[in-house]
Amino acid sequence: MKKILILGSTGSIGQSTIDIVRTFPKEFEIVGLSANQNTEDLLKQIKEFKIKTVAINDEAKAKELKSILNSKCEILIGEKGIIELVRRNNYDILVTALVGFAGLIPTIEAIKLKKRIALANKETLVVAGEIIINLAKEYGAEIIPVDSEHSAIFQCLVGENKNYISKIILTASGGPFLNKSINELYDVTIQEALNHPNWKMGNKITIDSATMMNKGLEVIEAFWLFQLPKHKIEVVIHPQSVIHSMVEFVDGSIKAQLSSPNMKLPILYALTFPERFQYSQVLTDFKKISNLSFFEPDFDKFVCLKIAYDVISEGGVSSCILNAANEVAVDSFLKGKIKFTQIPDYIKFALDKIDNKFNFEINDIIETDKKTRELLNSIIN
Amino acid sequence: MKKILILGSTGSIGQSTIDIVRTFPKEFEIVGLSANQNTEDLLKQIKEFKIKTVAINDEAKAKELKSILNSKCEILIGEKGIIELVRRNNYDILVTALVGFAGLIPTIEAIKLKKRIALANKETLVVAGEIIINLAKEYGAEIIPVDSEHSAIFQCLVGENKNYISKIILTASGGPFLNKSINELYDVTIQEALNHPNWKMGNKITIDSATMMNKGLEVIEAFWLFQLPKHKIEVVIHPQSVIHSMVEFVDGSIKAQLSSPNMKLPILYALTFPERFQYSQVLTDFKKISNLSFFEPDFDKFVCLKIAYDVISEGGVSSCILNAANEVAVDSFLKGKIKFTQIPDYIKFALDKIDNKFNFEINDIIETDKKTRELLNSIIN
Repeated sequence: MKKILILGSTGSIGQSTIDIVRTFPKEFEIVGLSANQNTEDLLKQIKEFKIKTVAINDEAKAKELKSILNSKCEILIGEKGIIELVRRNNYDILVTALVGFAGLIPTIEAIKLKKRIALANKETLVVAGEIIINLAKEYGAEIIPVDSEHSAIFQCLVGENKNYISKIILTASGGPFLNKSINELYDVTIQEALNHPNWKMGNKITIDSATMMNKGLEVIEAFWLFQLPKHKIEVVIHPQSVIHSMVEFVDGSIKAQLSSPNMKLPILYALTFPERFQYSQVLTDFKKISNLSFFEPDFDKFVCLKIAYDVISEGGVSSCILNAANEVAVDSFLKGKIKFTQIPDYIKFALDKIDNKFNFEINDIIETDKKTRELLNSIIN
Repeated sequence: MKKILILGSTGSIGQSTIDIVRTFPKEFEIVGLSANQNTEDLLKQIKEFKIKTVAINDEAKAKELKSILNSKCEILIGEKGIIELVRRNNYDILVTALVGFAGLIPTIEAIKLKKRIALANKETLVVAGEIIINLAKEYGAEIIPVDSEHSAIFQCLVGENKNYISKIILTASGGPFLNKSINELYDVTIQEALNHPNWKMGNKITIDSATMMNKGLEVIEAFWLFQLPKHKIEVVIHPQSVIHSMVEFVDGSIKAQLSSPNMKLPILYALTFPERFQYSQVLTDFKKISNLSFFEPDFDKFVCLKIAYDVISEGGVSSCILNAANEVAVDSFLKGKIKFTQIPDYIKFALDKIDNKFNFEINDIIETDKKTRELLNSIIN
């Protein structure tokens, strides 16, 4: 019986994780949950799994829930509450399904407790990859990726010698605007951008898919996770999202992991690795698969992807600037304050204006993140 | 430096193996070769690699070559000569690229010498899978498959626990007659049957691809190689031959091995496993790949595939009968003596007429093979 702490339990990955626990009640036990502000769903989860401790980021929502639950469930509040929840040390696996920068500090705390991290929050590695990877090595904590692409690569590398990797190939659906021209992108609406062809996900990541910044963040995540130079990390457009990613070895042989697009598989794998559980909810019917295709991404159209590659070369805290600027820009787009095509413009602006820093610690990252957000918010609002 | 003995060096797999040795002269040395009767190509190989000992199956051809070479190269003759060559025990890896039943006894001899067997001759496992697999276990000899499908599965299973396999999925191009109707098959010519869309191979295996008996033999080969029940071995038509085969695990995750269709990759892998050598002759350009498709095979049209599955259930020496009957029928088709659609008819006839035998030894297999050939030859000729 593995004990699980889920951060971000009301989001898409969190709900999928909970569904897996429902399927395997003898194998997994949820010992804690955190949510940003969706107390309605959180309350259902608390009742269903008789959760004793939760953390809620939004203070008002936390107090509201407190009055409903009385003392049946301890409620921790705010960022500090989430960190406190992680420090309770009563779990085996931390599922970090928080959105954005918020995943960083809780992940660090869990690494220090030598936990297995089922990492769905890619921003953690984007903003502080070097620190996280080194800490994980130092403490002997396992980081198992939950992103379907990185899980695919992780699975393809099982039993293989990493020295024989010639490149990893991240597949990308290309999002809802794959077939739009550059000019057409100027006028896309929020609704159009939220209409992902293959994956049902949260709003932030869905917009990231539309700009292909999601793939950019994944390239940076892969850079840290698999410790490969950036020229060995390739992106290929594969609109059907059946092949989740691939590894090419030095002899020319390619291994791929595939399945119908469903996040439950990589989540389950991160929980069970090196075991695999019998699970029949996500099966792939090859008779229904046809016309799998692959082509090069258009870096002129998907500027965000290009910026992500550039940021790897720059190093320092530049990927933290990229991430913070992207979070503000996406949020502003979702609020109707900026156009879709302005997202990369604001990111480039932030990368220009905010100083990079090379020998950095976690506080530098927190500061850079804050500075970037302040800069862009002051301009956009 | 690994020493290699190649049986069937003038065939397609043999020539590809030799080309790999050319690419890695510091890693591999050829210590012996065998050919059926193509002394012209064999002579070139003897000269190029300064081979000291070869075996030639055809007696007249052997004597012809002897007179040319004088005493520079020892020439062993006939089936016995091939066995003698294997027994010389001066090699690390045996590449068995012989055609058909002829691969069996030499493979057994190499297993007894605890050699690595790079197995391209699938008939060996088809006719005597149980004996071969048990012998390999007993002597600790490694059998590494060279068939692209089995190499793919072997690669997908590296580092994975075999208990977690839910099924293996052998991909099949469907051959030249994939889109012909059952009725159209009656009148196909030898030339049409030899015109494989993706792979350039020897005549026997090319006809086997056209009837899909090749896939049937591969199902039987996989049955022995991976020790799985037949309902866990599936065939999927994949006309592009990019995905060479797949493994589905119990959690629903699928791993696939892929590359441009080229036999050099699985040959190289069988020679180098668990290492991988830097090899750039066969690279896959995803930008050129589109429309990968998959669908169910038509067992009514490709009767040979159905017979192969049936034979697994029957057990005993029935797969030996199937193989011998198929070899005679294919040969007869290639000689214009029977029609394409008569190939499965003759195989079914042989399976009906020849008695099956359950507790069998290698001699029973040799006898069954002989009996089957005699029966069909007496009817066809």
